[in-house]
Amino acid sequence: MNRLYHVALSPFCRKVRLVLAEKRIEVELQEERYWEKQTEFLRRNPAGQVPVLRYDGRFLTESGAICEYLDAIVPEPQLIPSDPEAAYEVRRLVGWFDDKFHHEVTANLVYERVNTRLTGKGYPDSRAVKAGAQNIKFHIDYMESLLERRRWLAGDVMTLADFAAAAHFSCLDYIRDVDWNRSATVKDWYAKIKSRPAFRSILADVLPGLPQPPHYADLDF
Amino acid sequence: MNRLYHVALSPFCRKVRLVLAEKRIEVELQEERYWEKQTEFLRRNPAGQVPVLRYDGRFLTESGAICEYLDAIVPEPQLIPSDPEAAYEVRRLVGWFDDKFHHEVTANLVYERVNTRLTGKGYPDSRAVKAGAQNIKFHIDYMESLLERRRWLAGDVMTLADFAAAAHFSCLDYIRDVDWNRSATVKDWYAKIKSRPAFRSILADVLPGLPQPPHYADLDF
Repeated sequence: MNRLYHVALSPFCRKVRLVLAEKRIEVELQEERYWEKQTEFLRRNPAGQVPVLRYDGRFLTESGAICEYLDAIVPEPQLIPSDPEAAYEVRRLVGWFDDKFHHEVTANLVYERVNTRLTGKGYPDSRAVKAGAQNIKFHIDYMESLLERRRWLAGDVMTLADFAAAAHFSCLDYIRDVDWNRSATVKDWYAKIKSRPAFRSILADVLPGLPQPPHYADLDF
Repeated sequence: MNRLYHVALSPFCRKVRLVLAEKRIEVELQEERYWEKQTEFLRRNPAGQVPVLRYDGRFLTESGAICEYLDAIVPEPQLIPSDPEAAYEVRRLVGWFDDKFHHEVTANLVYERVNTRLTGKGYPDSRAVKAGAQNIKFHIDYMESLLERRRWLAGDVMTLADFAAAAHFSCLDYIRDVDWNRSATVKDWYAKIKSRPAFRSILADVLPGLPQPPHYADLDF
């Protein structure tokens, strides 16, 4: 059985979960308390990070490399187009969300609010939380500008860019940090992706001590 | 004429420069004072980051997406293998250097020592510098463990993984932060890649107020 070592509110783990589910690759989830840096976990991944995917007996790391690999070996549905121009736009946006958005928004909000609690290391830094809440507005506006001319973020078909973005948004939505009133266009995009069967496992996540907000799993939020 | 907007000691810009040079794609370099966030620059790239590549009249951003794109449209020499297993290992290592190594080493050393000076924002944080100097040892040991069973970092041919790593090491070498005595294996790897024609432009970089150390451009360092 394939297994994904993950933490529930990691956008990188969620991106891989979405890809696995969309491609109907069965996988068993195992929560990884990666911050404890246990020897066993470090043996699986010397980088000491999640996600780690055990696939066909090997341990795969780095969410970007994992998604590219899965898209190559299980081509349906294709999440990174073969056309170099289209693939560029997908990878540009995956980079946008996993680097820029992650740094400016997710790290400031999810990591501050949740990880400080999970790992027992200190309290959220209110300046970080404020910065994250401010930055997400710019990003929603940017997404709106893309979605006004495209059905999905990178073009007219759903791609890895949508999963990367939705992985971040779903984590932020769990902690009530997305203002869905800011853009009807972005809300529609999220409603579309949220209603996919691949999203079900993510909507079922429950964190100990941090219950789901009522709208989180609601497809008609 | 294609043009790369860059800063000299950015590992992400250097990775793209190496790929362009290796593929013999001619490009004009233009230094970008990205931290000033000029309107003109932000118009080219709303992410406000370097590198930005003007290619065939379009502006391309995100170094990872740019390298994948260039490898697809100019296939020789191939830097990301077609075989999914081999490609996975290349992308895993590119991720390793551009995420983990960047965060643990480059940001702590290059950004602290150089960018604080360039941007006129404060002084290097000595704790960061100390952490970077400590962390690079672990990474050199990890590279040695790879290079003991492979000719290049990701396998027996040179790939984007080597360019990603060499881009970081060349920045660190400019500021004398690589202890080449730690591993003869890693030193040999760097000597091999440094002697490629693609590396020449990087070895010719001179930063105002920060002269090259004598060994930096020496192929027999």
